[in-house]
Amino acid sequence: MRMIDVIDAKRSGGTLTKEQIDFFVEGYTNGEIPDYQVSALLMAIWFNGMTADETRDLTMAMLNSGDRLDLSDIPGKKVDKHSTGGVGDKVSIPLAPLVASLGIVVPMISGRGLGHTGGTLDKLEAIPGYTVEIEEDAFKRQLRDVGCIIAGATGNIAPADKKIYALRDVTDTVDSIPLIAGSIMSKKIASGTDALVMDVKTGAGAFMKDEKDAVALAHALVDIGKGVGMDCMAVISDMNQPLGLAIGNALEIEESIAVLRGEGPADLTDLVLTIGSQMVVMAGEAADLDEARGKLEAKIADGSALERFRAMIEAQGGDGRVIDDPTIMPQAKYRIPILADKDGVITGMRADEMGIASMMLGGGRSTKDDQLDYAVGLMLNHKVGDEVHKGDVLLTVHSDREDIADVERLIRDNITIGEEAEPITLIHQVIV
Amino acid sequence: MRMIDVIDAKRSGGTLTKEQIDFFVEGYTNGEIPDYQVSALLMAIWFNGMTADETRDLTMAMLNSGDRLDLSDIPGKKVDKHSTGGVGDKVSIPLAPLVASLGIVVPMISGRGLGHTGGTLDKLEAIPGYTVEIEEDAFKRQLRDVGCIIAGATGNIAPADKKIYALRDVTDTVDSIPLIAGSIMSKKIASGTDALVMDVKTGAGAFMKDEKDAVALAHALVDIGKGVGMDCMAVISDMNQPLGLAIGNALEIEESIAVLRGEGPADLTDLVLTIGSQMVVMAGEAADLDEARGKLEAKIADGSALERFRAMIEAQGGDGRVIDDPTIMPQAKYRIPILADKDGVITGMRADEMGIASMMLGGGRSTKDDQLDYAVGLMLNHKVGDEVHKGDVLLTVHSDREDIADVERLIRDNITIGEEAEPITLIHQVIV
Repeated sequence: MRMIDVIDAKRSGGTLTKEQIDFFVEGYTNGEIPDYQVSALLMAIWFNGMTADETRDLTMAMLNSGDRLDLSDIPGKKVDKHSTGGVGDKVSIPLAPLVASLGIVVPMISGRGLGHTGGTLDKLEAIPGYTVEIEEDAFKRQLRDVGCIIAGATGNIAPADKKIYALRDVTDTVDSIPLIAGSIMSKKIASGTDALVMDVKTGAGAFMKDEKDAVALAHALVDIGKGVGMDCMAVISDMNQPLGLAIGNALEIEESIAVLRGEGPADLTDLVLTIGSQMVVMAGEAADLDEARGKLEAKIADGSALERFRAMIEAQGGDGRVIDDPTIMPQAKYRIPILADKDGVITGMRADEMGIASMMLGGGRSTKDDQLDYAVGLMLNHKVGDEVHKGDVLLTVHSDREDIADVERLIRDNITIGEEAEPITLIHQVIV
Repeated sequence: MRMIDVIDAKRSGGTLTKEQIDFFVEGYTNGEIPDYQVSALLMAIWFNGMTADETRDLTMAMLNSGDRLDLSDIPGKKVDKHSTGGVGDKVSIPLAPLVASLGIVVPMISGRGLGHTGGTLDKLEAIPGYTVEIEEDAFKRQLRDVGCIIAGATGNIAPADKKIYALRDVTDTVDSIPLIAGSIMSKKIASGTDALVMDVKTGAGAFMKDEKDAVALAHALVDIGKGVGMDCMAVISDMNQPLGLAIGNALEIEESIAVLRGEGPADLTDLVLTIGSQMVVMAGEAADLDEARGKLEAKIADGSALERFRAMIEAQGGDGRVIDDPTIMPQAKYRIPILADKDGVITGMRADEMGIASMMLGGGRSTKDDQLDYAVGLMLNHKVGDEVHKGDVLLTVHSDREDIADVERLIRDNITIGEEAEPITLIHQVIV
């Protein structure tokens, strides 16, 4: 088999065979096929797409390039959640202990942030002592003892995906639905979960700006999962404005704690409960979504979800006192309010630009090697649809530098105040 | 400027600016931009094409990456011819001395063959002593003394094209009209010619199988040439069956000599005179094509075209006696006739497969490093439209191996004998 024939088959609009997909994934991983041929193929895939069968074969080839976590010796159905990433999206953090507080096993392998989106692991590292690098034995032990974990990948998970992803990143082939779906699902299947709820974001701050792309990706993800016997579903949720009120690492941990106290912002709490209910039903711990939601609300009300979060933090070496006193996390030197310059209604607050503002303060990475400042970020006072008056605090910038003229300009350019706001629906669709 | 933004602009269907094109051509040539980003861009160009302006900018960027031959100190209008390549296409070889015999300067920079198509330089090297590597001074001296030359490129011509072509070859991005046009014209402009006739082949043995692609390529070539003040036109000619009767290096030299004796096959002679007439009119040596054709026929009749060929061969170190005795070139050990297995009319003779048959005998290269056997090839007795009877010799295989079962099978599979043949038109169109 020759790589040029594989490229030609896809370029000409054909369907790649399993053998062709295995050939290029294996050949690229072991260094036999050069970057320049794979990048030509990736661009051809970008243009001509992949069928559901091709996407599944690609996923399996990348999965098979590395290790697979075996959680079968841990009793109970393992249920995980994955988000395609957004701004202010800290859902996983309260969600894992909340669902685990019902006795459901939640093995969550998560990632770091890049660009305008934050990463769950980065946020958790704002907690003093919290470690995300967990060996396989300790990973399983924590699942048995605490019922939940949020950590980085153990072992050598999908090395083919790592290599292909790095190449996509520099060849403008990131935004291809089959390539995204294969990348996500190869890692999720490798993580050994039995069931998975995907939160596919759509809107200005999401990777999928258009809802129809988000829906197509959701279907691709669910199809792959079901194809390997995983119980899978997806929620399409809004990412036009940031989720919740906090953007920034320590600030988002503080907001996660608030959710588990029953004091979180309405939109964030609603999404946590919506996704959580799906997970509870999948795990067989409730007959329907209403019952599941009621059970989760009870675990918030009686404090056991919050205590489960403390237990998870302490199991991973973190300082559990953060639950009672979030100020043990890094705190910013300056808190600078941004005031409304006129009366009106907030008609827009671009999630991606708010994420970039936080990144410019040091809260996110523009390149992989950037060091994070955990303290900084934005705390919103208002969101789209809120009425504001001139002089009201729109949001507070948490900064370690005094001059934030650049950040303020970006924020002001991307919060619009007008006469009437289009209502924002948080949950657009559920794909099963 | 970032390469990923250049890729994105083209991938999204946009038009690249001159600055973006210069950036990637220069960056790739000097090693600053990696192969894998250029191959992604080439695939995006394959899908989305290039405008006439982009194609011209690409051509000029590749031209400017290297040296340019300055022929302005040689008196008279310099007229060249280029073919996109075919099987049995030895037109350049009789054409250069024929046109030069009218006092027109013909500086022909030619190439080698790969795959099913033969290369003009390879064919000429079948003549003992003939060298195609000529330094610039000697190149110009020969043009002054003899009026024509057929040689390889002097100096460092379009190194960007060399590098990009090598990458296209392994990334399935060869058959893109703007990339082909840029590659051909950057080298032709660098060769210093004032006027150029392009022979764009179409049909089974040509790079452009469909006539509409051939026409699009011809227009692209002519537009680029005219854009830099070169007098340019193109002929679209048939390459469904081989041109002439000889396929193979020494065999094609022998047939070229026959053309200059007035004894060549009708189709080959017609194409030489058609293209030659255009060159003569371009050079201002005839008022119209009829007058030009008459003048060329006279030079064949009086033997001066043939003597000009001898002079060109000798100027390049070749043994001029080949004109009188072609057997001083390598001769094959075996001459094996292939006989018709039934009565009928030849309805098809696939040019590409006949070229591959010659390549399998050793007459062509399947990879760049293959050594050629100059002696071998095919001598056709019949072409499409000829009536044949069972037992007639269809063609003779000139081979240095006795067992040619593989070659014979390929030949038989690709010569069809039926009841009635569709007539083949040699010259499809002229594009000015």
